[in-house]
Amino acid sequence: MDLVKVGVVGCGTVGSGVVEILLKNGDLIEKRTGKKIELSLVADRNVEKVKKLDVPENIIVDDGFKVVDSDVDVVVELIGGVTVAKEIVLKSLKNGKHVVSANKALFASYGKELFEEAKRNGVSIRFEASVGGGIPVIKALNEGLVANRIEKILGIINGTANFILTKMTENLLPFKAALQIAKDRGYAEADPSFDINGIDAAHKIAILSSIACGRWITVDDVYVKGIRDITPFDIEFANEFGYRIKLLAVAKFENGTIEVRVHPAFLPKSHILSSVDGVFNACLIEGDFVGPTLYYGMGAGKEPTASAVVADIADIASSRGSSVPAQLLYQESQIFIKNPEDFVSSFYLRFTAVDKPGVLSKISGILAKYGISIKMAFQKNVGFNGGVPVVMTTHDASFKTVRRAVEEIDNLDVILNPTFLCMIEE
Amino acid sequence: MDLVKVGVVGCGTVGSGVVEILLKNGDLIEKRTGKKIELSLVADRNVEKVKKLDVPENIIVDDGFKVVDSDVDVVVELIGGVTVAKEIVLKSLKNGKHVVSANKALFASYGKELFEEAKRNGVSIRFEASVGGGIPVIKALNEGLVANRIEKILGIINGTANFILTKMTENLLPFKAALQIAKDRGYAEADPSFDINGIDAAHKIAILSSIACGRWITVDDVYVKGIRDITPFDIEFANEFGYRIKLLAVAKFENGTIEVRVHPAFLPKSHILSSVDGVFNACLIEGDFVGPTLYYGMGAGKEPTASAVVADIADIASSRGSSVPAQLLYQESQIFIKNPEDFVSSFYLRFTAVDKPGVLSKISGILAKYGISIKMAFQKNVGFNGGVPVVMTTHDASFKTVRRAVEEIDNLDVILNPTFLCMIEE
Repeated sequence: MDLVKVGVVGCGTVGSGVVEILLKNGDLIEKRTGKKIELSLVADRNVEKVKKLDVPENIIVDDGFKVVDSDVDVVVELIGGVTVAKEIVLKSLKNGKHVVSANKALFASYGKELFEEAKRNGVSIRFEASVGGGIPVIKALNEGLVANRIEKILGIINGTANFILTKMTENLLPFKAALQIAKDRGYAEADPSFDINGIDAAHKIAILSSIACGRWITVDDVYVKGIRDITPFDIEFANEFGYRIKLLAVAKFENGTIEVRVHPAFLPKSHILSSVDGVFNACLIEGDFVGPTLYYGMGAGKEPTASAVVADIADIASSRGSSVPAQLLYQESQIFIKNPEDFVSSFYLRFTAVDKPGVLSKISGILAKYGISIKMAFQKNVGFNGGVPVVMTTHDASFKTVRRAVEEIDNLDVILNPTFLCMIEE
Repeated sequence: MDLVKVGVVGCGTVGSGVVEILLKNGDLIEKRTGKKIELSLVADRNVEKVKKLDVPENIIVDDGFKVVDSDVDVVVELIGGVTVAKEIVLKSLKNGKHVVSANKALFASYGKELFEEAKRNGVSIRFEASVGGGIPVIKALNEGLVANRIEKILGIINGTANFILTKMTENLLPFKAALQIAKDRGYAEADPSFDINGIDAAHKIAILSSIACGRWITVDDVYVKGIRDITPFDIEFANEFGYRIKLLAVAKFENGTIEVRVHPAFLPKSHILSSVDGVFNACLIEGDFVGPTLYYGMGAGKEPTASAVVADIADIASSRGSSVPAQLLYQESQIFIKNPEDFVSSFYLRFTAVDKPGVLSKISGILAKYGISIKMAFQKNVGFNGGVPVVMTTHDASFKTVRRAVEEIDNLDVILNPTFLCMIEE
């Protein structure tokens, strides 16, 4: 029976969940893996907080670097951020420790550097909890679908944004009111900007894309738009015409090109992702042999995230994935990241116009000039931001063309506010 | 660079898919795993068929035992059945070969024996493709959720039955007409009894339950009922009252007891499994820390199933799970398999009665005598098998009590046919 010594750095929400699992299910995990996983050190600046978790006093330290320099086999980095966390991870790897982390920002920014360091030292670095909370989606992509060329990933991978959009849909609430509910329930942080602006989802899709295509995609490669501009009017329109609005993370791989984006999107109600509501996450991954597969579960929270962290520890203990995944090192050089201007999609456009005759003709005239074909136009006689809403959906057009046409339309006297545009994912 | 030599025994549908993947995506798999997977031998009685797959003639043999006795590292058993297949697998293990197989019947009947043989010889035996086709659900359960005590598994894991029920629901077709469509489309075999009687799903839930609880559950431990008795009337009633009827595989773990069953069930439309239609499969797995997680995809077919087989080969090549999963050997002795008589559920009951006054009173009188509380009763004035249908749903009751009450009711003069009963999974 091998003994695997684990040191946890950062005993906040997820860290305390890891401690709880190892205390409660440690025996079961030992039976399943054949290895004894020992909680050897727990570091947190707040030592008193850790004591309350039934952690023996003699294994609590107040400084993460004490774990890095100890005799543990695995360092679990759960302090977050990309400064001290990066130092902790790099130094652990240099000290020959395996590393487990839930830090999506760290991998989406410095993944290449960290994985090269791990390889140099012949140790493993694992990050299941960085995407999709407790859902073993990285394992699925990395191992379960290894036989497949990945063609598409569609994800609802930010629980906060999904909760807000679900509330807006269920109760036709304005964005701000739904955000307040999310805050009240503890689903949104005091500063929720990373979640509602799409940055968190961009980190996650960068990580999934990297695994899928064998080259590091960073968060800077991802086109990002948040959910602030969505109104109940848009939600209602979408609903009437058979759609849901979701914050979607998308990666499409075709002919050596990757298209990576995070933005609100219209999704047909019949699409399996449309029924993913509240704080749940889901990832649809399509491979050339397996076809579409979906992974669904709690995308955040103490216990689900800790479940993924402990699975990584168990994998290291079982010597599964004992080295860095080869595909993250082969650095496929032939891959090109598509410019957002070249995205092709059908679009939803919501104009705010003065209530005068001729408005529809002016708008549609400009769209025609740019060769944008209208699928449906709809003008509603309700007050909307001081004017009336005019809504159109288009057939496929390039993002570049649509943006230019909208820019010209927004300069018209009859248009009162910047136009809201949203891709439709059929 | 290590070389891993693979021999495929049985080159039918799935076997030819495995060959195709290794030929098409072999380079990619090598980059991802860092190992070269070589197709070294292919055995099939029909040598000519194999030649057409671009397999070099010198690696084709006509006898599976030639693969077993060759120098390959991994034997892939894809001939099916439990006689020759069992010999092939056992002899391969004895010869020190790792084994990959998609043979659910084999594992659900002889899993214990095969795993003990693998352990004796220090080799690996993997079976991802035996459940859920291309969906990496066994990997999820075995590795991704290793930190969790598994509380519940709910699966739609037979594509043929799910296709038939979907067709019956969409077009209100009788069972036989929907079965014919399934046959015409190649989704049902000439003899479809294993699929429609629930045996195939029972094999699969036996395998999943075994992994979840650390003790071999065989197909004989599973309560099984098929879908033959479902009528369009039941489907329509379910729909009106907010349900779908699905062939559900269920495993519930509580206080050292397992309840394992396969049967048609009423499922609320809002349940995520209700939207799993056609030949798709899905498994909902709940753990004590991770909460509910779902895995969805193509549950059968050449390419998805081959994707799972190749993932197992790649795992062996990468030495992930290089030995038998420990949990399938620890043989938890404290686990008790619940007698179907003790299942507790709410029920849907459809009686066929003569069209006379007093029928409802007689039926409900007997239910009352047995202490079964009626949630809803509904008598429809339409012809049904020579009488009129009387439908009831109950509150929670034990299967034993409901069966006895129904037996007594079926002996009434006013009842024309055996009563159809179906559990409601809320």
